Amino acid sequence: MASHIDTYQDFPEPGVLFRDITPLLRDPESFHAVIGHWSAILPEQVDLVVGVEARGFVLGAPLAYEMGAGFIPARKAGKLPGAPRSISYDLEYGSAQIEIAVDALPRGARVVVVDDLLATGGTAAATIELVRRFDVELLGVSFLLELEGLGGRDRLPADVPVVTVESVPN
Amino acid sequence: MASHIDTYQDFPEPGVLFRDITPLLRDPESFHAVIGHWSAILPEQVDLVVGVEARGFVLGAPLAYEMGAGFIPARKAGKLPGAPRSISYDLEYGSAQIEIAVDALPRGARVVVVDDLLATGGTAAATIELVRRFDVELLGVSFLLELEGLGGRDRLPADVPVVTVESVPN
Repeated sequence: MASHIDTYQDFPEPGVLFRDITPLLRDPESFHAVIGHWSAILPEQVDLVVGVEARGFVLGAPLAYEMGAGFIPARKAGKLPGAPRSISYDLEYGSAQIEIAVDALPRGARVVVVDDLLATGGTAAATIELVRRFDVELLGVSFLLELEGLGGRDRLPADVPVVTVESVPN
Repeated sequence: MASHIDTYQDFPEPGVLFRDITPLLRDPESFHAVIGHWSAILPEQVDLVVGVEARGFVLGAPLAYEMGAGFIPARKAGKLPGAPRSISYDLEYGSAQIEIAVDALPRGARVVVVDDLLATGGTAAATIELVRRFDVELLGVSFLLELEGLGGRDRLPADVPVVTVESVPN
C-alpha cells in the first residue's frame, strides 16, 4: 500500500512532508482494499459516516456507500449554509475551523469519522469533539495512514477505537 | 429526490440561491439511488472518475468505487503537490482555477467527470477542457442536479454526453 503514497518535501508549507494519497485512489484494487479493510473491521451497523474535508470526503463517501450508511461532510468554515455547529482548533501551521450541519447527526446515531491521515491529531480530535456534541454513539475513527512519532493517537480520546490501514515513520 | 435538496437564499453570496445536497447524502437510499442511476446509464467500462472539489468528491468517489474505476480529484488551486496541470475560468462571482495531477490521466483512458450541480456550466466546461488536454476518451459528465434557464448545458461541448439525475427551475 505504501508504494501508492507519494511524499513531497515542503508542501504546502516549508518543513512539511506532504503525503499524497491520490496514486492509491487512482488504482481501483487499492481503493477497494482500503474500503474493504475498514468495513471488515468496523461494526456492521453504521448509520452515518462523517468525512473530514476534503480527502476525508473521497474515502468516507465510498465507505458510507459500501456500508449502506449516509454520509455527512465535516467542512471548513463558511462552506455550509444555515447555522452549522462549529469548532475551532490549532494546527501545525495556523488555526482552523470545522463545521457540521446542525441537523446532520440525530441523537443516538451510530457514527464513524473518516480522514486520510493521522498526523498530530489536531483535526481528528476537534472533529471527534464536535461529533460528540450531537450526542451520538461514536463507533470509531478511521484513517488511511498514521504517521508515527507525532503523538496523534495520544491526542484522541482513549475510548474511541482507531482503525488505520497503515502506519509509516514520519 | 428534490425533497432531499434544500435551498438557501443569498449563500454564499447575496443573490445566489444555494442548493444543499447534504440531506440527500445522509439518506442511504437516495445516496444509493443516485450512484445506481449514473452507473446504469454510463458505459460499463470506465477507467477513471474525475470528481470536482469538493461536492464532486462526495459523489464521484462512490461512483468510481461502484464501477471498479479509480478516482481522480480535480482540485482548487494550491491543493495538489508537484506541478499539476491547471486551467483558469470565470465564475458567476469572481474567477477560479481547477488543477489535476500531471500523471493522473493516462492517454486513452476512459474517463467520466462528476459534479453535484450544473448551473452556469463554467466549472464543468473548464474541467472538461482540462481533462481533454490529457488526450483521454471522455465518456460523459454526470451531475446530480441541473438548474434550468442558466444555459449551463449550452456551455458544454456538444459531443460530451451529459447525465443528470434531476432538473429543477432556478
